[in-house]
Amino acid sequence: MIVYGRNAVREALRGRREVGAVWATDHAARERWLTGVEVMRVGADEVERRAGSDAHQGIVADAADYAYVEAAELLGRSEPLIVALDEVQDPQNLGSIARSAECAGATGLVLPRHRSAAVTPAVCRASSGAVEHLAIARVRNLVDFLAEAKRAGCWAYGTAAEADADYRSPDYRGGVVCVFGSEGRGLRPRVAAACDALISVPLRGRIESLNVGVAVAVLMYGILQQRDALDGNP
Amino acid sequence: MIVYGRNAVREALRGRREVGAVWATDHAARERWLTGVEVMRVGADEVERRAGSDAHQGIVADAADYAYVEAAELLGRSEPLIVALDEVQDPQNLGSIARSAECAGATGLVLPRHRSAAVTPAVCRASSGAVEHLAIARVRNLVDFLAEAKRAGCWAYGTAAEADADYRSPDYRGGVVCVFGSEGRGLRPRVAAACDALISVPLRGRIESLNVGVAVAVLMYGILQQRDALDGNP
Repeated sequence: MIVYGRNAVREALRGRREVGAVWATDHAARERWLTGVEVMRVGADEVERRAGSDAHQGIVADAADYAYVEAAELLGRSEPLIVALDEVQDPQNLGSIARSAECAGATGLVLPRHRSAAVTPAVCRASSGAVEHLAIARVRNLVDFLAEAKRAGCWAYGTAAEADADYRSPDYRGGVVCVFGSEGRGLRPRVAAACDALISVPLRGRIESLNVGVAVAVLMYGILQQRDALDGNP
Repeated sequence: MIVYGRNAVREALRGRREVGAVWATDHAARERWLTGVEVMRVGADEVERRAGSDAHQGIVADAADYAYVEAAELLGRSEPLIVALDEVQDPQNLGSIARSAECAGATGLVLPRHRSAAVTPAVCRASSGAVEHLAIARVRNLVDFLAEAKRAGCWAYGTAAEADADYRSPDYRGGVVCVFGSEGRGLRPRVAAACDALISVPLRGRIESLNVGVAVAVLMYGILQQRDALDGNP
């Protein structure tokens, strides 16, 4: 699988999968983190041809296929904090969600196998390489996954703009799965019904939605902030 | 000033400035929020020519110049929560910061007059129209503004990846100014020195930075979460 863009290639080199050839322009090849890496110097047109995109920032690499994890592995971790996505199809949104989840220290990300963006080169790029370090699982059916998560002791929270409950009101100790829908459409009714509760990140201004990658970060950091406060003041 | 893109035009129509002519393709003109608005039906090429960008989503409007507010007005509000930017030059980043700040309910945004992105059509688009509702001030000199804010009773917090203090440790009651630098370069030393304290949003994964719009949202919501908790448990 091709990986392009500075951060995407850098994190692939630091990450779990094997990286083969790297092609870069003279300018991009000067990056300090490429020290010790064998780089083929080529023109920008050759990088673009190999990347299949003009968002390559002068560098492209040939890496092993992206390695997904098993959803059961995520559920087996201690007090997992899992982000699950319901039909998020936009690669930019999936990338920014992955970046937010990785930075916040989420246990992992769960994507449905169908009608959802997968980890493509565009997603690697949009995530700034976060997908290389984040555990990502694909599941056949999101509703079944939520049932499995609940059997494993997790609470499932769906995020919905119209939910009455503020994201700060639940007690997030223990295992947690937070489900986000696509921008615009939100959660499908069957998915919302499979959650233990619906929560929202309150909008205190006049526009109607946060970017979904931003909403993921606010919720993840908010949960961790609350867990820390509860641990500190039992 | 030209405004293009669905959310940008919608919020301009709902916002403070006067909107003159609106041009839209047949498809874009069907939006429900355009009911009652006089729209000139034109082809996509005409919309693109007027927008000067291909990110127009089929709609462009002619609006009055963007109306900035005075920084002193922001400082005069009760317990203001102000975001100040140090040389953030990327319109996408400024747009996403404005969107995050507006959604979180920040009092306003302060931009230096020089070496900083201003509110351009690209910023209106990238902010999803949030700039129409957010109070934005331009200042001659950011260090002078921080001194003025401190005289007005605010605490100034600079965000820096290398700061030891976690963003959750200060007591944010009272007036607060949070200063963010550009992605990559961070705060200039003179600006960092003008802050009362430096704080960071902890990265719990392996990649090195949150998107700056995401960092703004995490900090704003975190401050409000803490203020609410402190008010609830005095």
